[in-house]
Amino acid sequence: MTTPSIDIDPATVEGLLMELGAFGAWGGTGVWRPVYTPEWVAAADCFAAWCGEAGLAVRRDAVGNVWGRLDGSEGGGPIVSGSHVDTQCPGGRYDGALGAIAALVAVQALQDGFGAPRKPLEVLALCEEEGSRFPTAGFWGSGAIVGRIGPEDAERTIGSAGETMAEAMRAVGLDPALIAGARRTDIDAFVELHIEQGPILEQAGLPVAIVNAITGMRHTEVVVTGVANHAGAFPMDLRRDPMAGFAEIASGVIDTARRMGRPAVTTVGRVSVDPNGPAIIPRAVTFTIDARHPDPVARDALYATHEELIREVVARRGLGVESRVLFDHVPCLSDPSLVDSLERAAAGQGVPTLRMASGAGHDTQQMATAAQRVAMVFVRSKDGRSHTPEEFSSLDDIVAGIRVLAAGLHALAY
Amino acid sequence: MTTPSIDIDPATVEGLLMELGAFGAWGGTGVWRPVYTPEWVAAADCFAAWCGEAGLAVRRDAVGNVWGRLDGSEGGGPIVSGSHVDTQCPGGRYDGALGAIAALVAVQALQDGFGAPRKPLEVLALCEEEGSRFPTAGFWGSGAIVGRIGPEDAERTIGSAGETMAEAMRAVGLDPALIAGARRTDIDAFVELHIEQGPILEQAGLPVAIVNAITGMRHTEVVVTGVANHAGAFPMDLRRDPMAGFAEIASGVIDTARRMGRPAVTTVGRVSVDPNGPAIIPRAVTFTIDARHPDPVARDALYATHEELIREVVARRGLGVESRVLFDHVPCLSDPSLVDSLERAAAGQGVPTLRMASGAGHDTQQMATAAQRVAMVFVRSKDGRSHTPEEFSSLDDIVAGIRVLAAGLHALAY
Repeated sequence: MTTPSIDIDPATVEGLLMELGAFGAWGGTGVWRPVYTPEWVAAADCFAAWCGEAGLAVRRDAVGNVWGRLDGSEGGGPIVSGSHVDTQCPGGRYDGALGAIAALVAVQALQDGFGAPRKPLEVLALCEEEGSRFPTAGFWGSGAIVGRIGPEDAERTIGSAGETMAEAMRAVGLDPALIAGARRTDIDAFVELHIEQGPILEQAGLPVAIVNAITGMRHTEVVVTGVANHAGAFPMDLRRDPMAGFAEIASGVIDTARRMGRPAVTTVGRVSVDPNGPAIIPRAVTFTIDARHPDPVARDALYATHEELIREVVARRGLGVESRVLFDHVPCLSDPSLVDSLERAAAGQGVPTLRMASGAGHDTQQMATAAQRVAMVFVRSKDGRSHTPEEFSSLDDIVAGIRVLAAGLHALAY
Repeated sequence: MTTPSIDIDPATVEGLLMELGAFGAWGGTGVWRPVYTPEWVAAADCFAAWCGEAGLAVRRDAVGNVWGRLDGSEGGGPIVSGSHVDTQCPGGRYDGALGAIAALVAVQALQDGFGAPRKPLEVLALCEEEGSRFPTAGFWGSGAIVGRIGPEDAERTIGSAGETMAEAMRAVGLDPALIAGARRTDIDAFVELHIEQGPILEQAGLPVAIVNAITGMRHTEVVVTGVANHAGAFPMDLRRDPMAGFAEIASGVIDTARRMGRPAVTTVGRVSVDPNGPAIIPRAVTFTIDARHPDPVARDALYATHEELIREVVARRGLGVESRVLFDHVPCLSDPSLVDSLERAAAGQGVPTLRMASGAGHDTQQMATAAQRVAMVFVRSKDGRSHTPEEFSSLDDIVAGIRVLAAGLHALAY
């Protein structure tokens, strides 16, 4: 079945984006809207009101996710679409918010154009993904839906001002004791539309991508230790200089990912030097390695190459090393038939796409443990930017993405 | 003329070291004695009293350097020996203090053994070398003697607690307006005994070195800039990652000095990353390059290789770069005949030596612009350590060094 062309009004979409972006507006184009703040409450209320106006049955769950439901004539597990409405501090108007608005606009267009679906359709504004107020609580909203978190997590999660997540919840009228009630086990499919946050679509000259995997990623903190000494009085041949070891390791891990080619990425983003004086050979260099690959086998090879390089460099240079894995997320593979279906839907709408892995993490990788199948739709990002007030996607690209999403939901639910 | 064997009493030397080290004693073996503090005043007073007890004519100059003079039968320019009595925070008992004590003990031994010299002999406790209280005022004491500083420098030099050098001087009874009076233009020779601060003597199994040059050194601050982006969403082939450029540059400059061999040294000791997040490709990496070589030609080659490497790496990687030379000290060459004379003096005392360049800076490089000729004597450092309470030189090595110094002064002044 080919879905007829779906008409999306650009002005309506733009209006919704601007209206939601006004809650927590920061500077010219930024948004500062961490979870459970007054700005976040206003955004969630606004989204709930929109759902009501669209004729959806509106519900808030125990952590504050907003759900809007359109019943299906045949019942069964719902087809869900949405994304998060919290932001970085500051972030922009698109990261997250676009996916919640896209779901609402798509479901409304389907309802207007095709009436009631066979299967239930639900739109979802997730309460928290970024971890910008509670650094250890990324994916809080989707984590509650999949049953990964409980009241004890709310008590022990500490925010940037020292407050607990439980206190922040109570302040907006939510009871942490009820978190388990947010769990869903009946979801058939979850499809999230999101900005790409990278330059791949822009470089390819395409507006939309279908995401076939969310990358596996690991953060490792490495401490390389040597012997601090006077920068002038110690000959090179007698040094045990952790900076020399660090530089060789950083070059090596970055080059490993480069040689492996897309979609492998490795980043050394954080470095601290002890004691960090210009005339002192350092005692220790501490740094992070962020390494990602969506293919489980290639990912293991990437990590193993990094580890072997570190071992070899420190042994050859007589340095000490301690490594600690800060976290390790396995890749999340999209459902292949859902990816195919979304690609057919795009083709039906005349929207050219490519297939790619997401290098960033998304709520979808959480939802994958609760839904039967997941996939994502990416919309081109200007200059590949995100997590900044400068993030931008054109209205043409956004409308193209929503048409692909709507056609995909149509194929699933009608 | 061969100087007869000079007898130095180890217990006396140890007593003086411990007594001076008690002023500003810090922890077990450390000393915390920045210039113009009560601890420094007490140390300078103590040294002046020792000079008086030794029968020397004692004088304090306008910045607080302590001079003790033994007139010579023939007059002429004095032969001067000494070092600084301020310390790092914390430093140890030997860096600086040993050279002042060694000068006093040597001159006293010469006076006791050989009576009045032909040329005047002067011992010198310099007030400040380390810059530990006033970071921009290293070599303050020797700088005043060579006429490099004036009252305006005292007014604009700011200490670690916000005080001016002028205020600190007045607080200990010194008048900054009189700084110019500290200048000396009559010095024939300056010989400074100092701990090595490096591992070369220890590795060679020798107690004493004669220093034929103080290395030339340059500190450069380099800022490499790229484009900050999401560590997951940006493919390696589209990145402009300043961390990759920095790592390649750091490896390259360190390896250049290693391949050039002793005495070339290059150190990357200070690094800061912007924004320094584990999941963000950095926007900029700022770092220092400390590069040293005592040979003027080899030094130029070392610096040029570093500069060419930086240019090549940033151009190839599409990165921006800004470099700023923080300071650039030319090498200070010892007087060749004075080096020869000190080596003969050591041989005459039965003290085995090697000839080496100093990789650290010393007051001697200042004094070289006021004295007709300069040289230094190094005493072996345990584990090559300095600028720490753990710095240590054995009494045997110290006595050997003082005997070499005394015999050298004898050859010059008798």
